[in-house]
Amino acid sequence: MPTQRYMLRIAYRGTNYHGWQFQTANPLTWKGPWPKEGEGIPTIQEFVSKELARVVGHPVTLVGSSRTDAGVHAKGQVAHFDTHQVQIPTAGLRMAVNAELPDDILIRSIEPVPETFDAIRSATSKRYQYLVWNAPERPVFVADTSWHRRKVLDVDAMSAAAAQLVGTHDFASFARPGHTRETTVRTILSCVVHRHGPRVVIGVEGTGFLWNMVRIVSGTLIDIGQGRYRPEEVKEMLAARDRRRAGGTAPAQGLYLQWIRFQEGYRDPHEESSETDWSS
Amino acid sequence: MPTQRYMLRIAYRGTNYHGWQFQTANPLTWKGPWPKEGEGIPTIQEFVSKELARVVGHPVTLVGSSRTDAGVHAKGQVAHFDTHQVQIPTAGLRMAVNAELPDDILIRSIEPVPETFDAIRSATSKRYQYLVWNAPERPVFVADTSWHRRKVLDVDAMSAAAAQLVGTHDFASFARPGHTRETTVRTILSCVVHRHGPRVVIGVEGTGFLWNMVRIVSGTLIDIGQGRYRPEEVKEMLAARDRRRAGGTAPAQGLYLQWIRFQEGYRDPHEESSETDWSS
Repeated sequence: MPTQRYMLRIAYRGTNYHGWQFQTANPLTWKGPWPKEGEGIPTIQEFVSKELARVVGHPVTLVGSSRTDAGVHAKGQVAHFDTHQVQIPTAGLRMAVNAELPDDILIRSIEPVPETFDAIRSATSKRYQYLVWNAPERPVFVADTSWHRRKVLDVDAMSAAAAQLVGTHDFASFARPGHTRETTVRTILSCVVHRHGPRVVIGVEGTGFLWNMVRIVSGTLIDIGQGRYRPEEVKEMLAARDRRRAGGTAPAQGLYLQWIRFQEGYRDPHEESSETDWSS
Repeated sequence: MPTQRYMLRIAYRGTNYHGWQFQTANPLTWKGPWPKEGEGIPTIQEFVSKELARVVGHPVTLVGSSRTDAGVHAKGQVAHFDTHQVQIPTAGLRMAVNAELPDDILIRSIEPVPETFDAIRSATSKRYQYLVWNAPERPVFVADTSWHRRKVLDVDAMSAAAAQLVGTHDFASFARPGHTRETTVRTILSCVVHRHGPRVVIGVEGTGFLWNMVRIVSGTLIDIGQGRYRPEEVKEMLAARDRRRAGGTAPAQGLYLQWIRFQEGYRDPHEESSETDWSS
């Protein structure tokens, strides 16, 4: 039977979910009650797959480009799935799925793609943002979607440090121990820090990331912004190849998967506006 | 025993609370299970009173200026309480209370006031804001703190209608039936509508409001923005003194108590910045 592959762009507020996909890989660190086989822990992947399956009329395997952790948000997650329904009106499919999804998950677009497109393997780079609420008072309305740091962050020092992370480096110091990747060498294409009033936003684009890498990069930059390390120390941190030498791991609640680029050239039309858009 | 009165400014995200204070007045409309006497329905007043009592060492009666409904938010609610602890360092009290309050409730300030100050009776005017997310797609991050209207709102028509509500009028058409007030005459000091990108914000300042009045005013203005009524019809709605003649009641989730002014002159220092601040 012929099948058609579809690509989805998905936005979600990760607060109420156990991440994109339940991570069976971390039984040593999971603090909650251990779930029984088949027990329903809410994940973004489950909710979206279930609604897609309902509309197309058969079970759906939804492959997400990034397995975001519990509490992490997305403005532009990308996923693909295959269906025997080769002539779906995509606008109608999108509306039908969005109508049944919870308020904090939204399918932003659905488009047919060739079967050579793969949400994981075709991705050429991803950009994440980390949002710090940097003000004397903790925020009330973005408590779950930012990280509150009271002390005024030195954004110039953070920017200087960020610049040193750009390039191809061994990021072993910036990976959570226990990762199983063959190599810890990764390429960061850009890393910038900007202030917008009480918001300090770290933006990191790379071709691939290690486990918790963006949260450790963000935590280290925030440590530098608070004066715990000097920007020059980033070079020594990289050279040490030792997780204990880098800074802290910033909590999941401030992290956003902003957009993903692909070799086939699919560009998120929302890429530009998502830069300062913390609301949709 | 001498007592000292304190005034508090409080911000909260109302999503997870049954309003400022449980409203025993609406058994006919409450859809949830009816609570047993003394059963803990979370209200803002309960949380703040409990933490204040813990710090000052005796039970506290917290009088809020506005009894915001379930789901309604506040940037600048005002309340007062009396304590025998006449020499409290207010900064320390505020920090001690904030440290134990949930993330979505914040005491913004505490200051000593004369016993003639009364959060309810001393208030001279209040300003509310209603936030519409006016875009084709529903918002993911502000789903609980705005109302999504897909159709492009005609802000000019809404502004023209808003201007006709300003002044002293009988607002019987804009009050929820069942209110027990002696008169339905109220004074609106200003009513304006502005667009900021996908946000359409209705601002209403008045000396006092009837039950659900701001939500009915907002719902009517939004109906006008969608072309359901003409701006000129506001005059007829007011004249009819009949709830059925005005527009719909906008849902609680888009409503914010912005600030309150008092005859003693206490001005919220946050008044200006709260105009476009949807985050803290």
